[in-house]
Amino acid sequence: MDEKLAQLKAKLGEIQDISGAIALLSWDQTTYMPEQGAPARGRQMALLSRLSQEMQIDPEIGRLLDELEKGGDQWAADSDEAALIKVARRTYERAIRIPPEFLASFTEHTAVSYQAWAKARPENDFAAVAPYLEKTLDYSRQIADFFPGYDHIADPLIDFSDYGMKAESIRTLFAELRQELVPLVEAITEKEPADNSCLHKHYPEKKQLDFGMDLVRQYGFDMKRGRMDLTHHPFMTKFSLGDVRITTRVDEHNLADNLFSLLHECGHALYELGIDSGFERSPLNTGTSAGVHESQSRLWENIVGRSRAFWEYQYPKLQAVFPEQLGDVTLDQYYRAINKVQRSLIRTEADEVTYNLHVMIRFDLELQMLEGTLAIKDLPDAWHARYQSDLGLVAPDDSDGCLQDVHWYAGVIGGSFQGYTLGNVMGSLFYDAALNAQPSIPQDIAAGNYQPLHQWLISNIYRHGQKYTADELIERVTGGPLTIKPYINYLSQKFGDLYDLV
Amino acid sequence: MDEKLAQLKAKLGEIQDISGAIALLSWDQTTYMPEQGAPARGRQMALLSRLSQEMQIDPEIGRLLDELEKGGDQWAADSDEAALIKVARRTYERAIRIPPEFLASFTEHTAVSYQAWAKARPENDFAAVAPYLEKTLDYSRQIADFFPGYDHIADPLIDFSDYGMKAESIRTLFAELRQELVPLVEAITEKEPADNSCLHKHYPEKKQLDFGMDLVRQYGFDMKRGRMDLTHHPFMTKFSLGDVRITTRVDEHNLADNLFSLLHECGHALYELGIDSGFERSPLNTGTSAGVHESQSRLWENIVGRSRAFWEYQYPKLQAVFPEQLGDVTLDQYYRAINKVQRSLIRTEADEVTYNLHVMIRFDLELQMLEGTLAIKDLPDAWHARYQSDLGLVAPDDSDGCLQDVHWYAGVIGGSFQGYTLGNVMGSLFYDAALNAQPSIPQDIAAGNYQPLHQWLISNIYRHGQKYTADELIERVTGGPLTIKPYINYLSQKFGDLYDLV
Repeated sequence: MDEKLAQLKAKLGEIQDISGAIALLSWDQTTYMPEQGAPARGRQMALLSRLSQEMQIDPEIGRLLDELEKGGDQWAADSDEAALIKVARRTYERAIRIPPEFLASFTEHTAVSYQAWAKARPENDFAAVAPYLEKTLDYSRQIADFFPGYDHIADPLIDFSDYGMKAESIRTLFAELRQELVPLVEAITEKEPADNSCLHKHYPEKKQLDFGMDLVRQYGFDMKRGRMDLTHHPFMTKFSLGDVRITTRVDEHNLADNLFSLLHECGHALYELGIDSGFERSPLNTGTSAGVHESQSRLWENIVGRSRAFWEYQYPKLQAVFPEQLGDVTLDQYYRAINKVQRSLIRTEADEVTYNLHVMIRFDLELQMLEGTLAIKDLPDAWHARYQSDLGLVAPDDSDGCLQDVHWYAGVIGGSFQGYTLGNVMGSLFYDAALNAQPSIPQDIAAGNYQPLHQWLISNIYRHGQKYTADELIERVTGGPLTIKPYINYLSQKFGDLYDLV
Repeated sequence: MDEKLAQLKAKLGEIQDISGAIALLSWDQTTYMPEQGAPARGRQMALLSRLSQEMQIDPEIGRLLDELEKGGDQWAADSDEAALIKVARRTYERAIRIPPEFLASFTEHTAVSYQAWAKARPENDFAAVAPYLEKTLDYSRQIADFFPGYDHIADPLIDFSDYGMKAESIRTLFAELRQELVPLVEAITEKEPADNSCLHKHYPEKKQLDFGMDLVRQYGFDMKRGRMDLTHHPFMTKFSLGDVRITTRVDEHNLADNLFSLLHECGHALYELGIDSGFERSPLNTGTSAGVHESQSRLWENIVGRSRAFWEYQYPKLQAVFPEQLGDVTLDQYYRAINKVQRSLIRTEADEVTYNLHVMIRFDLELQMLEGTLAIKDLPDAWHARYQSDLGLVAPDDSDGCLQDVHWYAGVIGGSFQGYTLGNVMGSLFYDAALNAQPSIPQDIAAGNYQPLHQWLISNIYRHGQKYTADELIERVTGGPLTIKPYINYLSQKFGDLYDLV
C-alpha cells in the first residue's frame, strides 16, 4: 500500500507542479505582460490547462485510488494519508465526470463571453451579453447534471468552491443574517454619516506601498516566500508553498483602497503560507473552501485591520508617514472614516455591514436563474428590484447593476458568491474561538503584536490545508456547527459603538 | 499536402507554446521569484521540459515530415513552406537521436554540476568540479556520437548553436583573426592607456535606467511587445513574437555596465522582434544561430552604441542627465573612456579588441578536450599558459581562470563560445552591407535616427528568422562567404584613430 500511495503522490505532485506553472502564467498576464503578449499567453495557458486536465483524468489515478480505498484501513480515519485519498478521490471524480470535449467547449465559451462582457459593461449593453449568459446558464445546468443526486441544482456548483455546503442551508443562514442586517443598516443610516474625507487627500504611491507592506510583514508575510506586485484587480496567487504572491493597486486619492486591499490579500496569503509543509505537492496543499479562505482575508482586513485596537498602535505611525494629510485628524475621526457605513451600488466598494446584502442578492438571483424562475432577459429588472428592496437604491443603469461583477460572465452561474458572506460569518466565528483560547489577543493587537493570533490560526486552521472541510474545521474549532451569532455580535458591538446605537 | 502541412504546423505550434511557457518560468526565476520558490520552480521547469520533449519526439511529426518531404516539390525551394519542413526535420532529428533516458540523466548531471561550480568558483576549488567536468566531457562526446558522420567531434555540438559551421573552418577563421588581433592589441597597449575614471563616478540607478531605456526605445524596441526588468546576469528572452523581454543590472559606480548591457540585449531583442509575424508558432520563429544573434547584440552595442557618431548626438543628452558627473568631461574624453582597450583576465569585462582573444582561448581548449589532447586535470595550467601567451597575463587563481565562465559547468563542452566571436565578425560584415546599400546610415546615426539601419536589418536579416542558415544569410547579403575583412577594417580604423596608430 505504501508503494501505491507513493505512486499516487507522484502523479498528484505533477498536477500540482503544472498548476503552479499555470498560475505563474496567469500572474504575469495581469502584472507585467506587455499588451501584445496576450494572444500567445492565451494559447500557452490553454495548452497547459489541457495537459493538466489530461493528467487529472489519468485512469491510473483511478486504479490507484480503488486499490488504496480497498486497503485503506491501514491508515487512521484522521490521518493525513486517509485525507489525501479522500480529497484525491473527490478531485478525480470532479475531473472525470466532465467530458473533455464539453470542458473545451465551455472554456472557449467563457473566453468569448468574458470579451463580450468587457465591451458591454462600459457601454451599458446588457442585450449584447444576454445570449452569452443564456449559454452560460445552459452550461452551468449541464455541469450540475454531471453530478446527479443533488438536492438543489446549485449544490454541485457550490461544491466546487464551498465543498459540502448546500443551497438550502445557505439560504436559511442568509435569511437569518438578512433579518439582522437590514435593521442594523437602517439604524446606522438614520444617524449622521461618517466623514471619510481625510482618506481622500493626496497620498503618494510609494509611501502608501511602504507603509502597507510594513503592515503586511508585521502580520507575518514572509518575503522569502512571497512578494507583492501591482495589478488592476488585486488577488493572491500561489505557485508553491515557497512562493505565494499578493498584488495591489494604488489610488493616490484613496488611502483605504490599497491599504485594506493589501491586508485582505495578505490574509489569503497567510492561510496558504501556513499550510503544513508536508502537504507540498499534494491536493491537501490549498485552503479548504472559498468561505474559509475569505474568512481569513476578511479577518485580517476587517476584524483586525479596521479595529480600534489595531490603529491605537498603528495610527501614530501612519500619521508620521503622512503628517500633512493626517496631522490634524484624530484617531477617532480616522477610525470612523475607515468604518463608514453607507448604502451603495457597488459590491467591491461596500463596507463591512452592507457588503453581505450585495452578496445575498447575487446568491438568490443565481439560484432563481438555475431553478428557471428567473429568465436571463429579466435579470436587469430583478437586480434593480432587489437593490431597491434591500438597499433602498436603484442603479442608473446595468453597468452598475447586473453587469458590475465579472463572475457570471467568465465562469458558471451558481456557487460564485456565497463564499464572500460565508467568509464574513466564519471570520468572526474563528476569531471568537481564538479569543476564547487566548483572551489576550486584543491587547496583543493593541501592542502591534499579531503573532499570537497568527500562530493560533496556523495551528487550528491554516496548517490543515484541505484536510478538513469547512464544516469539519468549524466543528473542530468551535465544537458546533456554523452559526451567525459571533458575526452579528461583532457587527452590533462595533457599529453600535461607532454609531451610538442603543 | 496542405492538410498535412497544417497538421504539422499545429504540432510544431504547441511545441512553441510550451517553450514560451518554460521561458517565462525561467525569466521569473531570475527576476522576481522569492528565494524559497526555487525547489518548486525546478520541478515545474523539469516537468514542462519533459512534456516539451515528449511533444518534440512525437512519431507523428516524423510521419508528417516523411510525407511532406516526398510530396514537397509543390513548394518552391526558397518558399517559407520548404524552409519550415527543412528546419522541422533538423529539429526533429536532433530531438529523436538523443535517447530520453540519456537526456534526463544529462540534465540531472548539469544541475548538480552547476551547483558544484557555484560553490567552487568563489572557493577557487577546481579540484571540486573536476570530476563533474570529466563526466560532462564524457556526456558531450556521447552526444556528438549520436550524430555520426562528422569531420570533427565538436561539429555536432557546434551545430546546436551555429548550425552548419565546422570546427575546422572556424579554427582557420580564428587563426586568421588572431594574426591580426595580437599585433593590434600590442600596438594599442604600447600607447598611453585611456582614462575611464569618468565612468566610475556615482550614477544613481533610476537616472541610468531612464536614460538607457530611452536609447532602447529610440533603437526601436517596442514597449507594447516587450519590457525590461532587473536581474543579476542580463539576458534577452522571448515568450512569443508579441512578448520579448530584456533584463539589465545597475552598478551605481559604473555607468557603462548597465548602459551597454541594455544596448546589447536590445540588439538581441530587435532581432527577435523583427521576425516575420507569419512565422509565429513555427520553428522558423527564432534567430538563426548564436553567431548571427550575437552579431546583432554587438552591432547595436558596439558598432552603433560605442561609435563617435552615436555619441555626437547622445552625449549632450547624457551630460544633461548627469551634469555633475560629466559636465566637465568632453565628448572625446568620454568616447575614449567607453572604448578603453586593455589586457584583462575576465571575458565578460573585456573590450571590443581583446574580447575575441578570450573567446578563442576557450574555443581551442574545448576542441582539445574533446579531441582528448587536453586532460581535464591539465585544464587550469593550459588556461593560464594560453592567457600568458595571448594576453600576457596570468590569473592569480582558477576563480578568474578556467572557473570564470558558467558554460562548461552547466551544459556541454563544445560549441559554447565560438558564437561570440563569430558574432563580432558577422556584425561588421552585416553593417558594411547595410552601408553599401544605404551610405547615409552614419549620418542618420549622428542625427539620432536609427530606423534606416533598423529597417535594413529587418528586411535583410531579422524577418527571415531561422529560414536561412548563417552561411546562407551571409551569401544573400554579401554575395560571398564569411570573411574577417570588414571586422578587421572596422577595428583598425576605429582603434587606429583612437590610439593614433600609423
